[in-house]
Amino acid sequence: MKLVIVGGVAGGASAAARARRLSEEAEIVVFERGPDVSFANCGLPYYIGGEIADREKLLVTTPERLRSRFNLDVRTRSSVESIDRKAQNIRVRDLVTGREYTESYDKLILATGAAPFRPPIRGMDLPGVFTLRNLEDTDRIKEQIDHGVKSAVLLGGGFISLELAENFVRRGITTTIVEKNDQILTPFDKEMTTPIVQGLAAKGVRLVLGQSAESLEPSGHALLVGLTSGEKIPADLVVFGIGVRPENKLAVDAGLAVGPRGGIQVNEYLQTADPDIYAVGDTIEVTDFVTGNTTQIPLAGPANRQGRIAADNVMGRSVKFRGTQGTAILGFFNHTAAATGASEKTLRRLNRPYRKVYIHPAHHAGYYPGAEGMTLKVLFDPSSGRLLGAQGVGGAGVDKRIDVLAIAIQARMTVFDLEESELSYAPQYGSAKDPINMVAFVASGLLRGDHPQVDLEAVLSGQSEDEPLLIDVRTPKEFEAGHIPGAVNIPVDELRSRLDEIPRGRKVNAYCQVGQRGYLATRILLQHGIDALNIGGGYKTFELFRPKVADRCP
Amino acid sequence: MKLVIVGGVAGGASAAARARRLSEEAEIVVFERGPDVSFANCGLPYYIGGEIADREKLLVTTPERLRSRFNLDVRTRSSVESIDRKAQNIRVRDLVTGREYTESYDKLILATGAAPFRPPIRGMDLPGVFTLRNLEDTDRIKEQIDHGVKSAVLLGGGFISLELAENFVRRGITTTIVEKNDQILTPFDKEMTTPIVQGLAAKGVRLVLGQSAESLEPSGHALLVGLTSGEKIPADLVVFGIGVRPENKLAVDAGLAVGPRGGIQVNEYLQTADPDIYAVGDTIEVTDFVTGNTTQIPLAGPANRQGRIAADNVMGRSVKFRGTQGTAILGFFNHTAAATGASEKTLRRLNRPYRKVYIHPAHHAGYYPGAEGMTLKVLFDPSSGRLLGAQGVGGAGVDKRIDVLAIAIQARMTVFDLEESELSYAPQYGSAKDPINMVAFVASGLLRGDHPQVDLEAVLSGQSEDEPLLIDVRTPKEFEAGHIPGAVNIPVDELRSRLDEIPRGRKVNAYCQVGQRGYLATRILLQHGIDALNIGGGYKTFELFRPKVADRCP
Repeated sequence: MKLVIVGGVAGGASAAARARRLSEEAEIVVFERGPDVSFANCGLPYYIGGEIADREKLLVTTPERLRSRFNLDVRTRSSVESIDRKAQNIRVRDLVTGREYTESYDKLILATGAAPFRPPIRGMDLPGVFTLRNLEDTDRIKEQIDHGVKSAVLLGGGFISLELAENFVRRGITTTIVEKNDQILTPFDKEMTTPIVQGLAAKGVRLVLGQSAESLEPSGHALLVGLTSGEKIPADLVVFGIGVRPENKLAVDAGLAVGPRGGIQVNEYLQTADPDIYAVGDTIEVTDFVTGNTTQIPLAGPANRQGRIAADNVMGRSVKFRGTQGTAILGFFNHTAAATGASEKTLRRLNRPYRKVYIHPAHHAGYYPGAEGMTLKVLFDPSSGRLLGAQGVGGAGVDKRIDVLAIAIQARMTVFDLEESELSYAPQYGSAKDPINMVAFVASGLLRGDHPQVDLEAVLSGQSEDEPLLIDVRTPKEFEAGHIPGAVNIPVDELRSRLDEIPRGRKVNAYCQVGQRGYLATRILLQHGIDALNIGGGYKTFELFRPKVADRCP
Repeated sequence: MKLVIVGGVAGGASAAARARRLSEEAEIVVFERGPDVSFANCGLPYYIGGEIADREKLLVTTPERLRSRFNLDVRTRSSVESIDRKAQNIRVRDLVTGREYTESYDKLILATGAAPFRPPIRGMDLPGVFTLRNLEDTDRIKEQIDHGVKSAVLLGGGFISLELAENFVRRGITTTIVEKNDQILTPFDKEMTTPIVQGLAAKGVRLVLGQSAESLEPSGHALLVGLTSGEKIPADLVVFGIGVRPENKLAVDAGLAVGPRGGIQVNEYLQTADPDIYAVGDTIEVTDFVTGNTTQIPLAGPANRQGRIAADNVMGRSVKFRGTQGTAILGFFNHTAAATGASEKTLRRLNRPYRKVYIHPAHHAGYYPGAEGMTLKVLFDPSSGRLLGAQGVGGAGVDKRIDVLAIAIQARMTVFDLEESELSYAPQYGSAKDPINMVAFVASGLLRGDHPQVDLEAVLSGQSEDEPLLIDVRTPKEFEAGHIPGAVNIPVDELRSRLDEIPRGRKVNAYCQVGQRGYLATRILLQHGIDALNIGGGYKTFELFRPKVADRCP
């Protein structure tokens, strides 16, 4: 059996190693266009910033290692030009010698990845304009920075731009991020990005939303980035991180189907329409585990899993890929933002019913020094309570809660299940009622009707026709420091004795700082016959939707 | 409706607050023997050590707060002396005035907790001899230390002693831990405690295993702790942390059944044999979620959940407690040890079939600076692959993996499910193949027969009659630095070309540093017709069972 793998990074390298473990006899050939296999993709920005000092560390493995340890025929700097499905062979060009040759296969795995999108604008080929995909791009960017870069523009407000922004700041570069949408980090709902937007401002990164680059022109030794607004931003260095496109040319030319966004179509065994050809990683379309829809999610974790599964199937097993839930995480200095499952945006776009809650807990017991704050947003099915998605933003401990919720989503658990979760507690690590339990209490209370809640957006948009009385149940001191416009202040501890201040028959929306006192207030009001709703997540959620400090310009 | 709650700390306070949220009308009376309600039990050692500087922080809430916010009738320094079940009332003694009176109830919740066990030995009442349960104990211990303590003996090697040891070290106290079993931290399997034992030694804490205190005698201004061995250890301060006993006297006197270890027996609604009396927290027997057996697990998390559930049921709902899985965590300086579900010891005692695997991953991508090592041990059902228990020890990120596994156990997931888990990955947080995926790969490979493994204990005990050839597949340099006795060295990269060194028909046990190269070696050998097993977890697991450095004596 001869297995040929096109692409030797995440999915391709995983497939090759797995295939060898399953079969010592198989002939396994890996073609990689670049000079490196299996490099640490996600580490590239940190090598540019100097956090990872040693370039060698980025080489997870080498062609030599793959040869000696896994007995693989690894051919780097080799471009696969075409597939002849009938003859079961591929056409290969050796990029060093220029020689072209044909290589046969019994089974073929396409792990060609995705390429950064380069918009068709003027000046894309000017020196100083980059995309970041591999070690060669990294070397070029780093070299320019090492020779002195004062300012940079990052196009796109996704993970890669934010990771680069951190590292550019670390290197003293004045940095601007330009994002064409009205928010950064589109896998997140907009309000959840507020702490990161504030973090950018705090680090002096300028953020321009709702704009994209229209032109690039030289200006002395530097560049001018022309935006749709007409503004021209000077920069020594420009990096485009505005998304990736599946490298599907081989597949398309071979007559294999691709989806509307270019991803190679595969069945649940990761097999293309040609039973001898599999495809894995950033180049394929996948099923969204939560929504059941087709999507493209270029992430290292799923790519690795897919490589393994494709190898299993090539070797005669029958293993399904369960789809992806899009678990992703970003670090920006001491901030963390992480998400898993569907976002509210996605659920709304799909017209899928959902409810949501926000909480703002500390990452461990507040009485122990060093507790850091976070916001958790959880989306769930309004009838079954099944988890649909979760997002977290804050400092330490966000990754833990999102990972716990990722497993819960995989297990199709409900918010009722998570009320009963038993997570580790000592004051350095968590709380007796962990944030996971807390968010489940709030969500379950909502679904059971114990804790009727109103979404802040509804309050702010004045959707309710009978204009409820807005009561801030925090202390007068908290109220004076800032409150939702139109609110009156009745501290929760005085509520029982001041019920007569609420006009009979008037509905009430209550809120506090994070939701807990508002919940108690709602319980008190309801039991006194007053139709009350708590504003989920309280004033802290309001501050996500209406941040006090807009993005500062450095 | 009049609800009376006996005990105002974790379970009692949770029950009271929940009951009030469900009913504004109910009369709710909370009796607490001590002066405080709802204090931060788990923070006490850190206040002694000074890590938590402000005593106020330990008061999660106050009687005044409970009164004003929750409209509770809180009576501290009030001891409940007896229950008259027929008359539905209790006898209360006011510990300040000495007055005794009767209080009626419709429903009663017992949340009396558990008291530290004080062994019946000579000298227990000497000054300087303590147990640690509440703020008063804490104040007394801290006061003595503030006045100068040079040496201390901690009886018992459980969580409380280790937490105290950390804080005693922080205060410059020469500390000895005496544990009667042959290991510390009995919820863990012994080998998993090795890193903590080494951590104790590194911090100069002396550990005496297999001994207990037989006598205490004054010696000048200090004490002498007499051990079973005859040794007498001088100490200025002695703290007994050798376990707790349910405070069941009220229940027993009232004719309510308790189990063999003294825990009040309740049904799944946390109801005693008397339908009007519920019991929660450290004072009850619970069901082990994994084994189905009855157990006693004195932990804050379950106590809080139980308080909430008992209140629900008192208020006419019908909510079951799903049992506890014993999730627990310890911090000792920069070490973390955490566990959830059943230990190997427990499974063995119950004659329950299981398999186990060990892995030794870094907590995040190795190429990113600051990666800390950990060991994960996972126990699972040999036929279904269902997770039965997990233990982790190491530095950062142990808590995350154990929490993820705790949820997986709750969801009755299998190791096959966890192969497909999608956890957050950026190099600061994890790996493309997270430790959770890795441990699942190893376990699934074992169950599928792809990755036949032998437990290290079987190798060390020479159980196998036909004496397999032990092959160390690491590099010669690694081999020379230390190997399992009797091993020969054939590096994995040379294995394919040195197969003829293995006598035909001879079985092989292979191992490497952590298991990965051993796995590949096993695959190579198997496919060449050699009956091979990999030693799970490799040399690093060997070092857990046979630590190089015994516990040093300071």
